[in-house]
Amino acid sequence: MYPNSLVKLIENFRKLPGVGEKTAERYALAAADMSEESIHEFSEALIGIKKNLKHCRICGNLSDEDECRICRDTSRNHKQIFVVQSSKDIAAMEKTHEYRGVYHVLNGLVSASRGIMPDDLNIDTLLDRAAEAEEIILATSATMDGETTAMYLDKLLKTHYPQLLVTRIAHGLPAGGLLDYADEMTLAHALSDRRRMG
Amino acid sequence: MYPNSLVKLIENFRKLPGVGEKTAERYALAAADMSEESIHEFSEALIGIKKNLKHCRICGNLSDEDECRICRDTSRNHKQIFVVQSSKDIAAMEKTHEYRGVYHVLNGLVSASRGIMPDDLNIDTLLDRAAEAEEIILATSATMDGETTAMYLDKLLKTHYPQLLVTRIAHGLPAGGLLDYADEMTLAHALSDRRRMG
Repeated sequence: MYPNSLVKLIENFRKLPGVGEKTAERYALAAADMSEESIHEFSEALIGIKKNLKHCRICGNLSDEDECRICRDTSRNHKQIFVVQSSKDIAAMEKTHEYRGVYHVLNGLVSASRGIMPDDLNIDTLLDRAAEAEEIILATSATMDGETTAMYLDKLLKTHYPQLLVTRIAHGLPAGGLLDYADEMTLAHALSDRRRMG
Repeated sequence: MYPNSLVKLIENFRKLPGVGEKTAERYALAAADMSEESIHEFSEALIGIKKNLKHCRICGNLSDEDECRICRDTSRNHKQIFVVQSSKDIAAMEKTHEYRGVYHVLNGLVSASRGIMPDDLNIDTLLDRAAEAEEIILATSATMDGETTAMYLDKLLKTHYPQLLVTRIAHGLPAGGLLDYADEMTLAHALSDRRRMG
């Protein structure tokens, strides 16, 4: 019923996570009401992430530079590595202002059900980095796949570096809870209550 | 904390109705994971609405052509005009498959509180179209501004065309609506618009 140009935009908004038909319609109609300038800026911003956004070659975090802001920050403790499944977990953690080490982004979790194997994840570089590290904090979500991944990493790391301190963030997170949905207090507690693995 | 290119995209998503910081972040990160092709298509779709989308010169509905699909449809009754505040009301109404007349989009409502006057709306062309019409159905929302606008239009139309049939869509309990969940306005309407049974 909508004109083609609007239908096309609705289809594109529908590709965003959690956006259904009604919401996509609402977004597209709002976009139709925006100024030409705003639409161009929006369009440029979309193109911009493909042009500028890459993964930090040290930790895998999203970055506009070859190395992300955190990895370039010499005031941080580079011997403490907080391992997460995605960049948005870093954003959530940084908001607590409780952590002064660095990060490592796996870009996913080992998942038997979805056929994601350790080889599909950013693990090799973690193993390299671990050679210089004093502590690796495993901060994957408190889900089945998150636990599997943590156990896998713990074993792998200890095989290579028997002396390495490997910890797991505390389960202040509710069972099944996703890291980036947790409030700052919960995350701060989860950090301070971390325990030695194995 | 996010790289600039991502922050920029988050800001643009935040301009959409009902999108807060967390949701905008989720959308931007999902966009970062899309293929270059998808992103270009998305960006083109945004530009496309500014390039192609206009208001039908007859009814004011959003359209890629000078006249919208409904106004060009000769199988519809062009003497019955259903007056709504925005194009999305047309989309909603068409899904019922119950209406075979045409539409008129006001592009807003008369609103004292927000300083929107009748002159700001698409009313002049409605007045022209009413000369040929048999019935004008006022279908603005059951809100204060919707009622004000309906009353204003009824008066205006009757002043110009004393013989014209001007109707108002019924207000009452929504389908499946429970009496004790309805607000007072809805209940008052449901009472005053009651009809004889059988």
